Amino acid sequence: MATDSKNGPITSFVPAEHQEAVSGALQESLVDLIDLSLVAKQVHWSVVGPRFQSVHLALDELVADARGFTDEVAERATAVGVSPDGRAKTVAADSTLDEASSEFASDDKVIRVITEALAATIVRLRANIAKVGGDPVTEDLLIGVSARLEQLHWMWEAKSV
Amino acid sequence: MATDSKNGPITSFVPAEHQEAVSGALQESLVDLIDLSLVAKQVHWSVVGPRFQSVHLALDELVADARGFTDEVAERATAVGVSPDGRAKTVAADSTLDEASSEFASDDKVIRVITEALAATIVRLRANIAKVGGDPVTEDLLIGVSARLEQLHWMWEAKSV
Amino acid sequence: MATDSKNGPITSFVPAEHQEAVSGALQESLVDLIDLSLVAKQVHWSVVGPRFQSVHLALDELVADARGFTDEVAERATAVGVSPDGRAKTVAADSTLDEASSEFASDDKVIRVITEALAATIVRLRANIAKVGGDPVTEDLLIGVSARLEQLHWMWEAKSV
Amino acid sequence: MATDSKNGPITSFVPAEHQEAVSGALQESLVDLIDLSLVAKQVHWSVVGPRFQSVHLALDELVADARGFTDEVAERATAVGVSPDGRAKTVAADSTLDEASSEFASDDKVIRVITEALAATIVRLRANIAKVGGDPVTEDLLIGVSARLEQLHWMWEAKSV
Amino acid sequence: MATDSKNGPITSFVPAEHQEAVSGALQESLVDLIDLSLVAKQVHWSVVGPRFQSVHLALDELVADARGFTDEVAERATAVGVSPDGRAKTVAADSTLDEASSEFASDDKVIRVITEALAATIVRLRANIAKVGGDPVTEDLLIGVSARLEQLHWMWEAKSV
Amino acid sequence: MATDSKNGPITSFVPAEHQEAVSGALQESLVDLIDLSLVAKQVHWSVVGPRFQSVHLALDELVADARGFTDEVAERATAVGVSPDGRAKTVAADSTLDEASSEFASDDKVIRVITEALAATIVRLRANIAKVGGDPVTEDLLIGVSARLEQLHWMWEAKSV
Amino acid sequence: MATDSKNGPITSFVPAEHQEAVSGALQESLVDLIDLSLVAKQVHWSVVGPRFQSVHLALDELVADARGFTDEVAERATAVGVSPDGRAKTVAADSTLDEASSEFASDDKVIRVITEALAATIVRLRANIAKVGGDPVTEDLLIGVSARLEQLHWMWEAKSV
Amino acid sequence: MATDSKNGPITSFVPAEHQEAVSGALQESLVDLIDLSLVAKQVHWSVVGPRFQSVHLALDELVADARGFTDEVAERATAVGVSPDGRAKTVAADSTLDEASSEFASDDKVIRVITEALAATIVRLRANIAKVGGDPVTEDLLIGVSARLEQLHWMWEAKSV
Amino acid sequence: MATDSKNGPITSFVPAEHQEAVSGALQESLVDLIDLSLVAKQVHWSVVGPRFQSVHLALDELVADARGFTDEVAERATAVGVSPDGRAKTVAADSTLDEASSEFASDDKVIRVITEALAATIVRLRANIAKVGGDPVTEDLLIGVSARLEQLHWMWEAKSV
Amino acid sequence: MATDSKNGPITSFVPAEHQEAVSGALQESLVDLIDLSLVAKQVHWSVVGPRFQSVHLALDELVADARGFTDEVAERATAVGVSPDGRAKTVAADSTLDEASSEFASDDKVIRVITEALAATIVRLRANIAKVGGDPVTEDLLIGVSARLEQLHWMWEAKSV
Amino acid sequence: MATDSKNGPITSFVPAEHQEAVSGALQESLVDLIDLSLVAKQVHWSVVGPRFQSVHLALDELVADARGFTDEVAERATAVGVSPDGRAKTVAADSTLDEASSEFASDDKVIRVITEALAATIVRLRANIAKVGGDPVTEDLLIGVSARLEQLHWMWEAKSV
Amino acid sequence: MATDSKNGPITSFVPAEHQEAVSGALQESLVDLIDLSLVAKQVHWSVVGPRFQSVHLALDELVADARGFTDEVAERATAVGVSPDGRAKTVAADSTLDEASSEFASDDKVIRVITEALAATIVRLRANIAKVGGDPVTEDLLIGVSARLEQLHWMWEAKSV
Repeated sequence: MATDSKNGPITSFVPAEHQEAVSGALQESLVDLIDLSLVAKQVHWSVVGPRFQSVHLALDELVADARGFTDEVAERATAVGVSPDGRAKTVAADSTLDEASSEFASDDKVIRVITEALAATIVRLRANIAKVGGDPVTEDLLIGVSARLEQLHWMWEAKSV
Repeated sequence: MATDSKNGPITSFVPAEHQEAVSGALQESLVDLIDLSLVAKQVHWSVVGPRFQSVHLALDELVADARGFTDEVAERATAVGVSPDGRAKTVAADSTLDEASSEFASDDKVIRVITEALAATIVRLRANIAKVGGDPVTEDLLIGVSARLEQLHWMWEAKSV
Repeated sequence: MATDSKNGPITSFVPAEHQEAVSGALQESLVDLIDLSLVAKQVHWSVVGPRFQSVHLALDELVADARGFTDEVAERATAVGVSPDGRAKTVAADSTLDEASSEFASDDKVIRVITEALAATIVRLRANIAKVGGDPVTEDLLIGVSARLEQLHWMWEAKSV
Repeated sequence: MATDSKNGPITSFVPAEHQEAVSGALQESLVDLIDLSLVAKQVHWSVVGPRFQSVHLALDELVADARGFTDEVAERATAVGVSPDGRAKTVAADSTLDEASSEFASDDKVIRVITEALAATIVRLRANIAKVGGDPVTEDLLIGVSARLEQLHWMWEAKSV
Repeated sequence: MATDSKNGPITSFVPAEHQEAVSGALQESLVDLIDLSLVAKQVHWSVVGPRFQSVHLALDELVADARGFTDEVAERATAVGVSPDGRAKTVAADSTLDEASSEFASDDKVIRVITEALAATIVRLRANIAKVGGDPVTEDLLIGVSARLEQLHWMWEAKSV
Repeated sequence: MATDSKNGPITSFVPAEHQEAVSGALQESLVDLIDLSLVAKQVHWSVVGPRFQSVHLALDELVADARGFTDEVAERATAVGVSPDGRAKTVAADSTLDEASSEFASDDKVIRVITEALAATIVRLRANIAKVGGDPVTEDLLIGVSARLEQLHWMWEAKSV
Repeated sequence: MATDSKNGPITSFVPAEHQEAVSGALQESLVDLIDLSLVAKQVHWSVVGPRFQSVHLALDELVADARGFTDEVAERATAVGVSPDGRAKTVAADSTLDEASSEFASDDKVIRVITEALAATIVRLRANIAKVGGDPVTEDLLIGVSARLEQLHWMWEAKSV
Repeated sequence: MATDSKNGPITSFVPAEHQEAVSGALQESLVDLIDLSLVAKQVHWSVVGPRFQSVHLALDELVADARGFTDEVAERATAVGVSPDGRAKTVAADSTLDEASSEFASDDKVIRVITEALAATIVRLRANIAKVGGDPVTEDLLIGVSARLEQLHWMWEAKSV
Repeated sequence: MATDSKNGPITSFVPAEHQEAVSGALQESLVDLIDLSLVAKQVHWSVVGPRFQSVHLALDELVADARGFTDEVAERATAVGVSPDGRAKTVAADSTLDEASSEFASDDKVIRVITEALAATIVRLRANIAKVGGDPVTEDLLIGVSARLEQLHWMWEAKSV
Repeated sequence: MATDSKNGPITSFVPAEHQEAVSGALQESLVDLIDLSLVAKQVHWSVVGPRFQSVHLALDELVADARGFTDEVAERATAVGVSPDGRAKTVAADSTLDEASSEFASDDKVIRVITEALAATIVRLRANIAKVGGDPVTEDLLIGVSARLEQLHWMWEAKSV
Repeated sequence: MATDSKNGPITSFVPAEHQEAVSGALQESLVDLIDLSLVAKQVHWSVVGPRFQSVHLALDELVADARGFTDEVAERATAVGVSPDGRAKTVAADSTLDEASSEFASDDKVIRVITEALAATIVRLRANIAKVGGDPVTEDLLIGVSARLEQLHWMWEAKSV
Repeated sequence: MATDSKNGPITSFVPAEHQEAVSGALQESLVDLIDLSLVAKQVHWSVVGPRFQSVHLALDELVADARGFTDEVAERATAVGVSPDGRAKTVAADSTLDEASSEFASDDKVIRVITEALAATIVRLRANIAKVGGDPVTEDLLIGVSARLEQLHWMWEAKSV
């Protein structure tokens, strides 16, 4: 039975000429999503201010989404024969997100930090969506991630109006 | 009403002379637990071999525990007036765990990696438990974390006998 | 960080040249879906006849779907920076569905009314799908809505054979 | 077996002299409750501002209540032999609520809009309760609706103090 | 502490002059509701015909309601100090419902039997509601029972149009 | 396709020579189980005494079992082509249980009444099990009913030791 | 839009001439219900004797009901524009219940204490129901509370027969 | 430890002289039950007509039962040391059911097809029950399957009266 | 009312001539099932080796089944008037299972131990099934236990092929 | 069998020399926790202001925690042989919390009131933890209570930064 | 209202020129998915070996997925006006999967069989995805099926490394 | 990486000088808890008398707790590198509980038996808590077990006052 590419232990069904674009897009998205979950947890802990309650809770919803997407993206990488890299040092080095502070921070500032983190993730994600048309499965997955992140971006931006 | 120490926005009920030991123990535990969850996710994705199925699933249980403890430890830090630091670069710099590989790895190797990661976390945790007797709440929390990690360590070590 | 368009308080990640087509498609779909839910509720109450039981219940499933899609479509509009218009007078004016009767109606007639309401919604939806290729997120959402409405259309048409 | 009135296909157990008052009260309440659910959804989508999160969520609770009452009121109408009219154009024409805007709106303004919409609904509802004493079942239903709407009115008014 | 009437082991808080009317209304309603549940179960088993499926299922919903109301009415009797009588021979002797057949019966006939059984129950219930104004708790309970039975009556009558 | 007997609308797969014994056993069991549920409900309401709480609750478990078995037995009758008779007057006439009182009764007396009602039901059921060996499906059903009733009999008898 | 009375921050829809009676009834009921929950908890802890198990559990059901009614009654007060007073000292001063003992007590005695506490609450509640006819919403709420308390009173009195 | 028969890897506790009858009965039942689930799914998709809704849903209940029994029967075969054969070509060759059509079919016709498929399955199953008395475990299992299929047969036959 | 045998406080419905065989079978089965649950828990704790994870979990399913059957068998004994004996020393003395080791053991060895423990239990159970035909209720219960134990035996034996 | 102290009906396992300290700590904690739940309910009802929604909800979480701890602390008292005193007048007299107001209050003020009530409870609790080392069970319970109250204190203090 | 194609009783919204490609893709996918579920069930029963437990369980997850996709694909066929063919003989004739054995098989062999069955299904599915671009709803459905099958393929292939 | 002691296959993190005390305490507690669950099950079956119902049910709660603690204690033993011994003969030999009777017993006697069994378990447990301070994890576990057993002891002793 003919399948398309296999360098490591796992067979890929992605046409060989699209394998590299697909792998790259998945790895970049993985790193950003892990960092998004770490940044959101960081400010989940350090937020203070009048809107503490609702911001604290909304951040855990965001973390849950980011973690779920992380798993889907990483397992898509394995399904196309590539072992993803989600280690702390890789995230620290390759993430497109701005570095966060670890100090206590006002809810206003936290809302800005999260709105910007979401925007940065979406921008690189949309650029990657444009590159993975050769594998409709990966394309569909990244569109689904962007759909939810853009919805979350609206919800966080709406809080700072 | 008299409470014990307050440098930032949040009041601590820990006696002033124990504040530093408690803060340090919590920050070290936080970093190790985040790294434990990232390492466990990494090998959750990269494991291959005859025991793939049960190792893949057992890793997600470990991740769930590590994430839960992460939150408890970090929120104990805030409750004693300290903003914890759980950012990717801090984890990459301060974790006591060995660096993991991001390549596909056999289940045998993954079991060794996890057994060692658990042991390293427990050793530093037990050392910290010995330092935080001045705050029984923190002491009780860290004992609870160690109880579960030691149970998990047995379960992972038992697989490699 | 560069994003694409922002006229109101909410940033859009849709390329500027596709913004109008996307907004228009979402607004038209929203109006039709609200009207579909109102028409389905209307006949949920006014249906009589031998098949009362199963028609009455099937209409509530349809209402639940229509309401769920309404929310998804409207929140996609906000995520692309546009406030959707779902007011009664807008629905009364802009819906593509035929006007329903408010009298008691036989189950046969109700089945025809719903089959036609679904068909009208699908036809305008498919036309809009063809216009929103410039934003894969919106395209994917509208395809998902059409998938379910076409399935429901088969189920209602099957009842009148 | 003697029952009281039957003009259409469904028998009514309401004494004939009270039939008209009961029908009228139910139809007016139906129209207001549908409009209340549409207005609440409208501002659920268009709200922006610091209290976005809690207002956005509280509106969905209100929508759920309004939809549930809509169904109970309409099905009471059918149980007294009258087909209710819940079409978009009827709602647009007969609602006692002020017309809403479809633009993005601040949370302060949305809270005022909802507080007033609830008050208008309650005022007409209480007037109708006074008219339907001849049918204790309908009276009990409308009292139950007013009980919840008055509770919600307090909760929304409390936000703008 | 002064309470109103106590002949048996249980104290009643109903004024003495209303005790008899209240007891009588509860006993009559109890007998009819038990018979309604037995008749509905009987035809749940003996129904045949094209609408078997939906009639068979709708009868079990009716049985569940009748059984629930039976318990509420009987326990209201005990709460006003009267032991209710729900024995088979009492039901056989005192029920206001027509005697049912135990033969296999067409769905059309079953729908008529149930519609009439509901109507007979409602008529006696409404007459009793008019007698128990002296005890608002019992009055409220019987109104609630009638509300649901009238709704069910509409649903069953709607099937035979 | 050959099946065994069909006099009414429903085909029976029971051999013709066993049809009468099977039908009779099911009808007798049905009547006793309905009466058991009515008697248990009667004393659920009329019980008083120090053990009110636990007797009152245990009776509802018994009612739930008796109602469940009633349905299984009656639907087995229909499955062998016979319409069962579960009407109040049939139960009043044909039940093997002693007639219950409708007065308030002490918990001691109620425990005796239920123990005897269970014993009477079991005795007739065991006699019927011995007659239905020609249809293993019915035999298995009645054995299952007896198993649970004998367990309940022990539990009730144990209370009066 | 015209509403009826507003002295504090919250608008009332109760006609002005009934406002005082309604407020008074709600405040008295609130105090009694809080005390009922505290007394029931007190004897939940101090009961000993052969019926410990069932009395201990039944008391927690009573506490749950009392707490639920407490919240409903207090929130009805806010909905009519009045801030309720549920502080310990107000309860200690204004409750109509007899003072309880804090010593270990036999189950027989506890049953009498609770039966009397329920009776006292019901008597003042019924007197208040007679005063609040001018606000059908409050009337309906208090009738519902009395319905459940009278049912509980029967259940507790039945235990001491 | 002495057990009865073992030709393949799995030990059987069935006496050797009954092994063949038991294996044969299980294999025949397996094939018929798989075919029953495939036929029921086929008409679940191809049914049209006024009773579409209830037939479509009732077929999925039948499929769920058939699949559950398939698993129980096949795993009983393995428990007696025999690997069952449930492949498509075996089902196509050995099933006792009539061949179904794959065209759209009226609900009337579908009801006849299913009634006959159930009857054919039951007839062969009852013949097999008579052969497996030497292994009470298998006998009990097949009686249980027949009990449910005969109940379903009544329900489907009742629809075509 | 005539029942069959009563030596202790609980009446038995088993014919007197079968009482001894039934009691003996139940007592032997009880002892073996308790020992099965203790042995399974023992190796649940002491297992080590590559298959630790799945063996450790499968043992808890077996324990749950053994405990459930223990209760059913013991309560059948009480229902036939006999107090069962499930004490540690009785289990130690009368069990038909081989004595287990309490040392850490490899997964291979544990699988053999459990396969043999299941086989020993089944063999004595099947011998007892052959003796209790005089009480179909007990016979049916023991057949049900054997059905599940034989299924589990296959699953454990399959692991050592 | 030797146990340590028994003055009332319940035996204590606490060494006699620690009995008084333990009893005192539990009684003080009980009173404060009941008052905490009453104060939190009071402001749950009387809060008004922009943060009404999140404060209103957060207060119910606090009430649930306080009520749960109340039960645990009181039942620990009974387990050491002491009947706790949780009556309204005892709470009014012995609580360490400041007296609350019963007027409508702004959300800002409510947040300060709760932050202070939590701090007062924690301070006395921590003092008591230092006294009960002679009974590790009570010590562990009070540490657990303090852990959660300190976490809640951070969350409420964070809102007023 | 204009829709695109209608040869049988159900209307299709797919443009006429794409109808044949869409129908063919759905029918081929249906046959492969049914066969995949039958093959997976076959080896679910016949697997033996050290990894029995995890393979046996993982196969049921695969069966659940395959059955779910079967239903989605078949109902998409009806929604485009075509009656799908899922009969045993059609599956036996048209499936692209290799023929399975019905003998007991080692876990190693079963893992290879399933990995190859998944690969064969995916290859034909991906070829069909390339043909159905004219109907985005069908295209989206088949991409979703492939996404999950490719993930499962990785998981099964990972076991044989 | 340095850990403390390892004689068997599993590493212990307990300091070597505390290993023996910890192992001994865990083994003694394990034996008592298993015996407690067996004794409680024994009297769950053999209890008769007026309080049968509540005693029978309360015993199953106790069994559930004892079984849960058994598992926790045994798995703590494995986590410190020791294989626990929970075999029937070890329990029969080493338990500190009095030997129970296997005859039917009155509820009064059963309550005494359980109260004494709990007291014996607690006394040895408290003695062991005093020995395991060198391992805070084991100490914390045993304190938690004692906390619940002392609570249960109060509840059982309270029944015999």
